[in-house]
Amino acid sequence: MVLKRKKIAVIGSGYTGATAAFIAAQKELGDVVILDLPAVENPTKGKALDMWETAPVQGFDSYVKGTSNYDDIADSDIVLITAGVARKPGMSRDDLVQINQGVMKTVAKEIARTSPNAIIIVLTNPVDAMTYTVFIESGFPKNRVIGQSGVLDTARFRSFIAEELNVSVKDISALVLGGHGDTMVPLTRLATIGGVPLESLIAAERLAEIVQRTRVGGGEIVSLLGNGSAYYAPAAAMVEMAEAILKDQKRILPSIAYLEGEYGYEEIYLGVPALLGANGIEKIYELELTADEKQALDNSANAVKDVMKALV
Amino acid sequence: MVLKRKKIAVIGSGYTGATAAFIAAQKELGDVVILDLPAVENPTKGKALDMWETAPVQGFDSYVKGTSNYDDIADSDIVLITAGVARKPGMSRDDLVQINQGVMKTVAKEIARTSPNAIIIVLTNPVDAMTYTVFIESGFPKNRVIGQSGVLDTARFRSFIAEELNVSVKDISALVLGGHGDTMVPLTRLATIGGVPLESLIAAERLAEIVQRTRVGGGEIVSLLGNGSAYYAPAAAMVEMAEAILKDQKRILPSIAYLEGEYGYEEIYLGVPALLGANGIEKIYELELTADEKQALDNSANAVKDVMKALV
Amino acid sequence: MVLKRKKIAVIGSGYTGATAAFIAAQKELGDVVILDLPAVENPTKGKALDMWETAPVQGFDSYVKGTSNYDDIADSDIVLITAGVARKPGMSRDDLVQINQGVMKTVAKEIARTSPNAIIIVLTNPVDAMTYTVFIESGFPKNRVIGQSGVLDTARFRSFIAEELNVSVKDISALVLGGHGDTMVPLTRLATIGGVPLESLIAAERLAEIVQRTRVGGGEIVSLLGNGSAYYAPAAAMVEMAEAILKDQKRILPSIAYLEGEYGYEEIYLGVPALLGANGIEKIYELELTADEKQALDNSANAVKDVMKALV
Amino acid sequence: MVLKRKKIAVIGSGYTGATAAFIAAQKELGDVVILDLPAVENPTKGKALDMWETAPVQGFDSYVKGTSNYDDIADSDIVLITAGVARKPGMSRDDLVQINQGVMKTVAKEIARTSPNAIIIVLTNPVDAMTYTVFIESGFPKNRVIGQSGVLDTARFRSFIAEELNVSVKDISALVLGGHGDTMVPLTRLATIGGVPLESLIAAERLAEIVQRTRVGGGEIVSLLGNGSAYYAPAAAMVEMAEAILKDQKRILPSIAYLEGEYGYEEIYLGVPALLGANGIEKIYELELTADEKQALDNSANAVKDVMKALV
Repeated sequence: MVLKRKKIAVIGSGYTGATAAFIAAQKELGDVVILDLPAVENPTKGKALDMWETAPVQGFDSYVKGTSNYDDIADSDIVLITAGVARKPGMSRDDLVQINQGVMKTVAKEIARTSPNAIIIVLTNPVDAMTYTVFIESGFPKNRVIGQSGVLDTARFRSFIAEELNVSVKDISALVLGGHGDTMVPLTRLATIGGVPLESLIAAERLAEIVQRTRVGGGEIVSLLGNGSAYYAPAAAMVEMAEAILKDQKRILPSIAYLEGEYGYEEIYLGVPALLGANGIEKIYELELTADEKQALDNSANAVKDVMKALV
Repeated sequence: MVLKRKKIAVIGSGYTGATAAFIAAQKELGDVVILDLPAVENPTKGKALDMWETAPVQGFDSYVKGTSNYDDIADSDIVLITAGVARKPGMSRDDLVQINQGVMKTVAKEIARTSPNAIIIVLTNPVDAMTYTVFIESGFPKNRVIGQSGVLDTARFRSFIAEELNVSVKDISALVLGGHGDTMVPLTRLATIGGVPLESLIAAERLAEIVQRTRVGGGEIVSLLGNGSAYYAPAAAMVEMAEAILKDQKRILPSIAYLEGEYGYEEIYLGVPALLGANGIEKIYELELTADEKQALDNSANAVKDVMKALV
Repeated sequence: MVLKRKKIAVIGSGYTGATAAFIAAQKELGDVVILDLPAVENPTKGKALDMWETAPVQGFDSYVKGTSNYDDIADSDIVLITAGVARKPGMSRDDLVQINQGVMKTVAKEIARTSPNAIIIVLTNPVDAMTYTVFIESGFPKNRVIGQSGVLDTARFRSFIAEELNVSVKDISALVLGGHGDTMVPLTRLATIGGVPLESLIAAERLAEIVQRTRVGGGEIVSLLGNGSAYYAPAAAMVEMAEAILKDQKRILPSIAYLEGEYGYEEIYLGVPALLGANGIEKIYELELTADEKQALDNSANAVKDVMKALV
Repeated sequence: MVLKRKKIAVIGSGYTGATAAFIAAQKELGDVVILDLPAVENPTKGKALDMWETAPVQGFDSYVKGTSNYDDIADSDIVLITAGVARKPGMSRDDLVQINQGVMKTVAKEIARTSPNAIIIVLTNPVDAMTYTVFIESGFPKNRVIGQSGVLDTARFRSFIAEELNVSVKDISALVLGGHGDTMVPLTRLATIGGVPLESLIAAERLAEIVQRTRVGGGEIVSLLGNGSAYYAPAAAMVEMAEAILKDQKRILPSIAYLEGEYGYEEIYLGVPALLGANGIEKIYELELTADEKQALDNSANAVKDVMKALV
């Protein structure tokens, strides 16, 4: 058989994982398997069933299944990792890194065992270090292990601009580089709206506020929710990357990619513009940066390296 | 101004309300306002913001806003009511009815005050009685107060059939009549798959099991989730009805409509096939039923009447 | 490489072929190659380029290419055949059959040479006989050679019903069996609208007129156009079948399938409900027909057999 | 009634008009009326009927109707003008201008009579002068008379870039200013691909070739077709503008707008970035141009003024 329906595995059935599964199903990208721990197997199955019952209404032929058995994700074309814990009061950052590193190890090995040809997209935080962990533990080539942060960060930046100017989100072109967190580098210099330079439309001071809001965009949602963190936009961002790969769209999306000399960095996963196609990351684009931008990116890379020191 | 962006209000920011808001935004049906109590204003805003940050990724120009102030839903074209409590251990059914009746009263009056031309779709359980309450309290004509249950029930029935036969959900035509709950009436006699009668494809005994699974479909999800109830399919079902109205699609969807003699019933909201267009319910279709089907529908109507007795 | 973009070849760059290519590209089903004779290579390239220039506006990543070289369709996943001549004044029906049979022979052999794993959908008239010709000449198994007529005939039937009742096209379920032409068999008995039986909504006499209009639906367009025949709906119908196959949707669509005993017929391509998935026709559904319906289908099969006699 | 289905009129049932009608219907933007001269009323009706018969296949609830009677376009929300003649051998440019000016006069007056609140988008060539003519003859305010050229020119530019670099069309941001024709001004300086500057990805010489190909993009299609001109991309471009207006998307699209001082020009319709929403052109953006770019735009404006001299 030449043609067959594609298969997407989502590791983690929390809000982000579930939402990613739902959006992938809505887009009819393929059949979806949501996997989580045996302890939450029933809720995982319940969410999957609820999604599947949505199929006739929304008209998608994507079967959605919940499981706690890794054998059920066998031969997935793409795997989206959302599993892991969130930082809780009293937990040090290093504790968080090491707990989620442990989760990534298990997950990566199971993916390698069951879906040796899959492409992996990682969302678990701290995402740069976790993507690196999955790369190491899976043994997959670097093009097949990718992290998500830039699509989300760029989306937040674009939505804030759209709101500020009361214009469509569709025509805002922007790019955010670097690690996911306060050190991210939104490139206001290159952003355009319908081809018009952003910096000509928003005064520098106000733009600086929007950039700052983007940097702490995750925290803003955490504060509002009170309990938990953002999941709609992160999930949609992951699925956009997955779609680019599954449909070989050759999109250029900011992606957490393994760098071997690009931008002057080595052995680090960092957010850079990358070509996403059937082979995962097919190319990394090296932007000419201003001195300030390069400095900011260096800071960001250092912050990521710093987190990576906690890896055991 | 002749043209303007449409406005959709969602009352209740729980899972179902949030998911309905998200799907409405994805479909670019209009701007979306999610309203909930002041006590959860921040989480409501957080969810809305997270959805809005999804807009650049999914490419929809629907602004999503969270609020606890009814003035923010002013001039909505359509209002989706998901607010209310779920039945908890120790709560009698009558308690549930009366608590949610109180919620509906407040909501209906505020809608009438702020959006006197809106069309209302109710999802809060027990939905037949709650739709009736909103009808009474809003003072709106019957065509502008509609309940959702049949789209969801039919979707479950169709998804179970699709799974059973391993066929597309797109080609399954089916209809579920009556109240939302164990007494619903799936009309297997008229269901077809790609034009082929369902009853010729699934043996009677197995079909009876599928019908029964449909009847308790809500409970199956509740059992699996352990804590909470279905929200993906219910939300999608509401939004499908809303889309039919907002775009004047003239769809024939099973809807909870106010009956004044149709099917022999009076002064009751019950699930029947209805034409949904710009005026809400524009027509009710009266099916010729077999004696068994009519008996089952009578049982369902009686069950609804029974619940309505608890209304104060 | 595991994932790759799919490839759709369209044989014939006339109105129907071009429109099919465009719709396939819009749906981002894969890259599209339109092939026609060397004499019209430039117009074929011009249409393809025009479609490709549409991609940024509509946002699809489907490259569209025109060619007269069969090597360019190598390794297509699916091939849509629209090539052939239309019947002109003074041309006997047998002449038409034999001319298009010649075209099918060439096309089938080139497809077999360049895309041995492809699935073929035939639209060229007389479509039942032409599909048979392609089946014979390609040497492909019967599941991979399919004709289109029922999706179109059913669509016309549904659009006439929607217009008659002023209801959405989305909720009309209907099925047309048999050969493409005056002998087709619309099954009014099983048609439903939102689950409501069609025969309860339209009086028998009026329904008979709608059925008759469906039977001569192609001729109605020919008469209006004055020069040429329908292409929007035929093209869309082909692409719907192609999508079902490319995405393995398991749809049940009326398809011209090779019968080996089904419905009592042998060695004939005839319109019947079929399951379309990654393997092409994966199953044929045998409806229980009334005596009248069976008689009508016999007439239709005889008409097809009659046309087939002209094959050389 | 508050809600109602929108209405789109398309003037001209040639390839571009028909394709625009089809795309508008596919997008379910509203009901579509295609109008052409009485001499081609039947073919116009035939094309419309063929599109309507596509509705059940593609699932859109947009009724499509053909007519030669302007009363049938009454109360349209938006009108797309594609009517007019193409330049034929032996016809001077001034002849073309005056013939199409005559067509525009009739069309504009009929629109003003039947749809006084409509927004008009003009595609007829020479489009800058024809948009001006419609503005004058309709008596509509400038925000409600808009010409299409920049969306098409930009789309061609983007598709050539996508082909050159083998990247997705989705991530290419670019802008073409000025009149439609050889003097158009593609702003390579501001174009980005996934946020990466275009000029860093394609060498200057090659980029100049792509710019030149864009300038003569219409002619390339004319040469290939041999008989006729492009219609897929022009039609899609018009409909994108129409969608922005009908759905109040606040998009920033290059549009032919009436200038009263912007960019230093007066009393001229010229391609500039404009905000398209429910009120048509809601804002014009004035880019800071380099001296070379301003010179090129002056040339373009002069070329348009030159054509306008032929108006009587």
